Amino acid sequence: MASGLTMDKIVSLARRRGFVFPSSEIYGGLGSSYDYGHYGVLLKENVKARWLEAMVQERDDIVALDSAIILHPRIWEASGHVGGFTDPLVDCRTCKKRFRADHLADEQCGRKPSKRPGETSECDLTEARQFNLMFETRVGPVEETGQRVFLRPETAQGIFVNFKNVAQLARRKPPFGIAQVGKSFRNEITPGNFIFRTLEFEQMEMEFFVPPDQAEQWHEHWMQARMDWYVSLGIDAERLRLRAHDADELSHYSSATSDIEYLYPIGWSELEGIANRGDFDLKQHAEYSGEKLEYFDPNAGERYVPHVIEPSAGVGRTVLALLCDAYDTDEIGGEKRTVLRLSPAVAPVKVAVLPLLRKDGHPEKAREIYLELRKHVSAEYDEGGAIGRRYRRQDEIGTPLAITVDHQTLEDDTVTVRDRDTLAQERVPVSELVARTSTAH
Amino acid sequence: MASGLTMDKIVSLARRRGFVFPSSEIYGGLGSSYDYGHYGVLLKENVKARWLEAMVQERDDIVALDSAIILHPRIWEASGHVGGFTDPLVDCRTCKKRFRADHLADEQCGRKPSKRPGETSECDLTEARQFNLMFETRVGPVEETGQRVFLRPETAQGIFVNFKNVAQLARRKPPFGIAQVGKSFRNEITPGNFIFRTLEFEQMEMEFFVPPDQAEQWHEHWMQARMDWYVSLGIDAERLRLRAHDADELSHYSSATSDIEYLYPIGWSELEGIANRGDFDLKQHAEYSGEKLEYFDPNAGERYVPHVIEPSAGVGRTVLALLCDAYDTDEIGGEKRTVLRLSPAVAPVKVAVLPLLRKDGHPEKAREIYLELRKHVSAEYDEGGAIGRRYRRQDEIGTPLAITVDHQTLEDDTVTVRDRDTLAQERVPVSELVARTSTAH
Repeated sequence: MASGLTMDKIVSLARRRGFVFPSSEIYGGLGSSYDYGHYGVLLKENVKARWLEAMVQERDDIVALDSAIILHPRIWEASGHVGGFTDPLVDCRTCKKRFRADHLADEQCGRKPSKRPGETSECDLTEARQFNLMFETRVGPVEETGQRVFLRPETAQGIFVNFKNVAQLARRKPPFGIAQVGKSFRNEITPGNFIFRTLEFEQMEMEFFVPPDQAEQWHEHWMQARMDWYVSLGIDAERLRLRAHDADELSHYSSATSDIEYLYPIGWSELEGIANRGDFDLKQHAEYSGEKLEYFDPNAGERYVPHVIEPSAGVGRTVLALLCDAYDTDEIGGEKRTVLRLSPAVAPVKVAVLPLLRKDGHPEKAREIYLELRKHVSAEYDEGGAIGRRYRRQDEIGTPLAITVDHQTLEDDTVTVRDRDTLAQERVPVSELVARTSTAH
Repeated sequence: MASGLTMDKIVSLARRRGFVFPSSEIYGGLGSSYDYGHYGVLLKENVKARWLEAMVQERDDIVALDSAIILHPRIWEASGHVGGFTDPLVDCRTCKKRFRADHLADEQCGRKPSKRPGETSECDLTEARQFNLMFETRVGPVEETGQRVFLRPETAQGIFVNFKNVAQLARRKPPFGIAQVGKSFRNEITPGNFIFRTLEFEQMEMEFFVPPDQAEQWHEHWMQARMDWYVSLGIDAERLRLRAHDADELSHYSSATSDIEYLYPIGWSELEGIANRGDFDLKQHAEYSGEKLEYFDPNAGERYVPHVIEPSAGVGRTVLALLCDAYDTDEIGGEKRTVLRLSPAVAPVKVAVLPLLRKDGHPEKAREIYLELRKHVSAEYDEGGAIGRRYRRQDEIGTPLAITVDHQTLEDDTVTVRDRDTLAQERVPVSELVARTSTAH
């Protein structure tokens, strides 16, 4: 991360290079809603692929699931979301703005921006009311008779209600996990900080079912494993930390939660929560559905309700942390450069192929190389503008390697390979390029 | 496809092996809503990855986008969905059931199942009323003041409203395309046929913007390219066909549409629509947003509104076609076998590693091989039950190759590789296994 990095710089780069931009922009936008452009999609897909590799492909105690977004409404009664997933809101009768009662100290009265609401008699606040954060809609064609349902506020419940089903199908016994990637929706009162908090967001959640007496040791395991994962994506360990929730921060279902926090430009903030959810969810769903959600251990001759350890990560927050962490500026030959030092494991484009000149057979040879490379990795071909400017463009989107085709290429079938970070240029035979660019991913 | 294949057999296999099963099952389900289990997720992810490869990675005239599900509500006025995305419904006063007025001939009165509604005076139908298929919800915490918004019924509009933005950022000029994969939602009156029609579904849509006089030729191009793609996934070309819409079938925005249809057990049905949307969408959004959505061609000195060719595919329908097409039964040594003859390009598991015996060092050696292979491909290790039964299990989920470790492996470091389709068993050195199993994907 560059020193003095601000969120504005990240927002600006994301906009300029088409990673992420405000949604519905030609209609004036829609609250804190964002669309991912080309490089944003590639980066985000890489994050999800690395998570699925680490969680599912490289383990045999975790299976994948993709449950529906609109689930049976009783699920949200059982989970406690219908009753308790609320924010307390107050209205100011003076400035007509709405605030979260529990965040008043962070907010400012719209009428008197120099004062904080509640500080002076100028602000006239209503009593706090509880507002549910779930989006509601109706299934069935008629408003009057349609069934009231909710957009899921977390993917986790879709996992809990499938616990028994999946355990049988996958022939698994605790400890084992179910992993899911998908969108969730929260009608947040105060979304903000770019893609840190948005109305709709992608989650990567894994529920790990364990014998009750192993819960603590697995909680420890997952805290470490998840920290290691962020480091494996290239994030600086110095800007990651684990923070245990205080008793008054804990969710209703949790006996212990630690957050993995990243040092964003807005300060240390949650990247992932790792909760010990105990047997809360399975017991609730057993009660509300009438289905036994237990495991019978034939060796011990015992029946028990597994406890659950849940590492719950945000895709958008991971993308934001990667952009912040990779953002850097330096100087090349007296010229300022912005560069994203993204790991090849997540970089949207792995290699760019550039003809030195737009003539003398350079473009033809460069395209030939590009067409071969793109069968294996995400690659780009660019012949527009001076070579220095094309390097800068790739630096800004975090492309680790740039291949340049020049007159020598046509003589000895070698190219220069430029390293984004060291700026070293190495002469490499064309025949070695596939291996060279595919090793990272 | 096995002769005499029924949808019930597919539903049963999908349930039994955990590809797809009813959602919210412990609560009695929720209409036509399904969850994808482990193998279903892996198969589905492969479909989407192959689409993104073909559309984005292996072309340089198409870029990726991921727009929000909840867009500015004016977008759906401009697109015609608020006014026209409706089904005509009638109620039967006798049996109290609801029917689509345009599908009456296919439906049966609940009271008199042997008669069709409308055929006799026993059925007393109301006048048809128009019901919008979009799910509605509200953004903002308070029911009374929240902004009415919709869950997108197609991903396409998120592309159109970003046309100018993306063209500039990606430095593209027509012909070029924008590709998007994501969930859409339709409050269908009569969902059904397993995952063929569901309330929420994933789409793979690409909008290809072209100069108006090239629209027809690009329409032709995409019909062929998309047919080829399905064949590349291993689907039998004999069970694919192109069918041009009659004039009275065309959507309000389309001047010509052809469907790629697959011969499902329920008959020829739509797999993908390839529409010539003309300039309808860009003109509508230009009018409603006040933004010019045009392209200025500097060579011709002309300004024009590009026309759009749209290949729009369903992920669920592709998964269903793959399952139907791959489903087969045969006999091995007098025993009946169910086998999914899935292409390695989409198979959920590429290779299974099986110790012949559960002793004599077989499991240790087999796990060593498995741990190496899973770094590269989706692999499974299985030591439970007789070897024949383990082969059958892999056959049913479509695993192309099964590696067996036996006593000879410990002597000469070779294994047997069994081919799912030919049943041929070949002796292969362990050192060649990574290359052998990774070639397909």
